[in-house]
Parts: sequence; structure tokens; C-alpha cells
Amino acid sequence: MSQPIVYGPSFSTYTRSVRLALEEKGVKHQLVEIDILKGAHKQPPYSSKQPFGKVPAFEHDGNTFYETSAILRYIDEVFPKPPLMPSTPAARACVNQVLSIVDSYGYTPSVTNLFIPRVLVPSLGGETDLEKVEAAKAPAALFVKELERLLGNTNQFYGGATVTLADLHVLPVLTYLVATPEGKAIAEGAPNLRGWFSRMQKRPSVQAMMPS
Amino acid sequence: MSQPIVYGPSFSTYTRSVRLALEEKGVKHQLVEIDILKGAHKQPPYSSKQPFGKVPAFEHDGNTFYETSAILRYIDEVFPKPPLMPSTPAARACVNQVLSIVDSYGYTPSVTNLFIPRVLVPSLGGETDLEKVEAAKAPAALFVKELERLLGNTNQFYGGATVTLADLHVLPVLTYLVATPEGKAIAEGAPNLRGWFSRMQKRPSVQAMMPS
Repeated sequence: MSQPIVYGPSFSTYTRSVRLALEEKGVKHQLVEIDILKGAHKQPPYSSKQPFGKVPAFEHDGNTFYETSAILRYIDEVFPKPPLMPSTPAARACVNQVLSIVDSYGYTPSVTNLFIPRVLVPSLGGETDLEKVEAAKAPAALFVKELERLLGNTNQFYGGATVTLADLHVLPVLTYLVATPEGKAIAEGAPNLRGWFSRMQKRPSVQAMMPS
Repeated sequence: MSQPIVYGPSFSTYTRSVRLALEEKGVKHQLVEIDILKGAHKQPPYSSKQPFGKVPAFEHDGNTFYETSAILRYIDEVFPKPPLMPSTPAARACVNQVLSIVDSYGYTPSVTNLFIPRVLVPSLGGETDLEKVEAAKAPAALFVKELERLLGNTNQFYGGATVTLADLHVLPVLTYLVATPEGKAIAEGAPNLRGWFSRMQKRPSVQAMMPS
């Protein structure tokens, strides 16, 4: 089998989720950096792999496709060990639900409306849009509240006792969220999630793919 | 096993996808109508099942959860026949990709920004927001172009020769899209998709769950 290729910026939460999954599987991959700050994700040659202008895209053994949740599932199926999905339908439903919650309700308030204006924009010399930040607090808090409930206080990871795709999809988004003062304050009220976050930090995959 | 319960408005594309999957499996279910025009999806008791105010939610054998793509996968796993996912990782990746494309890029231009202002709003006595409609044409066309490419001209359905979750997730959204003059014009340029649309119309599940 050929080495998978990940096309995307290494700082993107979605690129990070894909690379974390490959690292958990012990699969070496090639990263092709896409400079989204210069608009490379909306131009050829990248746009021929992902026409909607989002990152990342993925290539393996002649299969080229995109959408992080589809890439994660493919990685889990093609490289079977260790499994990154639980074995029962109910636990799998929890993982699938969390994967979709991140995309549907988590990313926008956490990254687009909190991390980017609070951290990225100032680092590039711009000014934080405080109205945007203020409006993002309630939806980000709801996202965290639901992540806390779905993790519960008995499971080590989403769906059970071993790490799953859901953990790898939540972590990069939560990392950016808690890098903002608003996100940090929100996470104070989520003890299960704080314990989970510490456990995730210790994983070699996280240390390799998300160096702080 | 108990009968599954689907909580959602029967006209919602997401509710329809879930009910189509149950019907394809030959599984009887109970529908609890949620009147979103009166805001019932943002109030108790529904909001205790889905805190983000979206539809549908799902209940089966003591499992209560939401997110249509998670519900669809659960239905496919718990009721194994006929399978609604293909058997190879590459074909499964195509189905997973299409499921995510509908949510990420398809629903908003097709339903929120075309069907609702063009068809629903006037039917309730309101006026179409023509600026919104105009802005939705390009993203809706890109969505259709990509659906056309991913279907290809040899496969009967997304992922192969038999119907999959992707088909059941695309159909309700595409049905609303082509109910608008803009969507109809866009679909003219997609012959694979037009053939697929005709095939889908003939399925008993579609005739039962999406009566015209």
C-alpha cells in the first residue's frame, strides 16, 4: 500500500484530526501544506481535489476524496489496528453523534467566532471583533455542555474505554477553544471534559501532531 | 426490540432521510410530529432530546440521540437487512463523503436559501427574498455538479449498484431544490443525477415517505 497524503494546513483542526488518526494507527503519511492564508485552498491544483474550498483533502491507493469525517472512517477501516470505533451500535452512535456535533455546532462558535478573532487575528496584527466573540459565548457553552454530558463521568473516552474517532475530532477544536479566555472560562464548568483533556494531552499521537 | 420513535416534522429533509432508511429496512416506526413553525424544536420537551434546536431526534431500545447521519448509521447497523452501506472501504468513503457534503455544502443553499424563500415563505403569505435566492444559485450549482461527478455514469446509486444511506440523504434535499425554478435549471445540466432521481422516485420507500 502507498503512503497516504494529507493536503491541508497543519494548524487546521480538521487536518489535525486526520493526522491524529493516522498517528494512532502507526501509519506514516505525507503532508502537503496548503497555505489557506494565501487562498491556496480556493485555487488549482488544490481545488481539483476539494471544489468547496475547505481543507483537508486525502489521497491513498488511488482514492482521492475529502470531508474529514469520511477520511477518518476510511482510515479506521483500511488500517484496522487499533480500532478507533467502539464495537456496539449504541457506542458507535455516540461516536457518530459527537463527530457530527463538532461539525454542526462546535466548529463555528469555537474556532471561527472565538479562536480566530481572539487569537489568530491579533497575531496577524488585526483587531478582535468583540461583537462576534460575545455572540459566540452561548453556542460555545452549549457545545461544551453537550460534550460534557455525552462523555459522562465513567467513560475514559467518547464511546468507552479506548480512544475513538470522536476524541480525535473533538480535541483540536477544544484546544483552540480553551486558548481563548472565554473558552477557558466555559471549560471550567466541565470537569469530565477537563479530565479527558488532560488524558488526551499525554497521548504520543497528540504530542507528535499537536506540539504546543 | 421496541419500535423506533422519530421526533421531527414530516416535511423536514432530515426527518425524511431517517424515515426512508427505516422504510428501506422494513422497520415500522412511530413519528412524533414536532411543529417547528411554532418553535416546538426549541422548547421542552423536545429540547431535552436535542439541545441545539435542530430536528430530528431518535429513540430506540433505551438509546436517545440525534444528528441524522448518526441515526442513519445506527439504523443500518441495528437492522442489518438490506445493508445500506457498500462493502468496500473506497465505496463506503464515497457514501460517507456524500453524507457529509449534503450537511456541509448542500442543505443551506438548496433548502435554507432556495426552497424556503422560493416555495415555503410564499405559501405562508410572505415574500421571497430575491437577494438570498440569487446568492444561493452558485453554491447550489456547485453542490449539484459534485453530486453528479460522485455518482458518475456507471453506478446506479451512490457507492454502487444498490441503494445506500447517501441516496436517502441526498434525495429529500434534491427534491426541494428542484421544486424551485433555479434548482430545476441547475439540475438540467446533470444527466446522471436526473436518471438517479427518476430511479429513486420509483422506490416504495420514497412513495410511502415522500408522497407528492
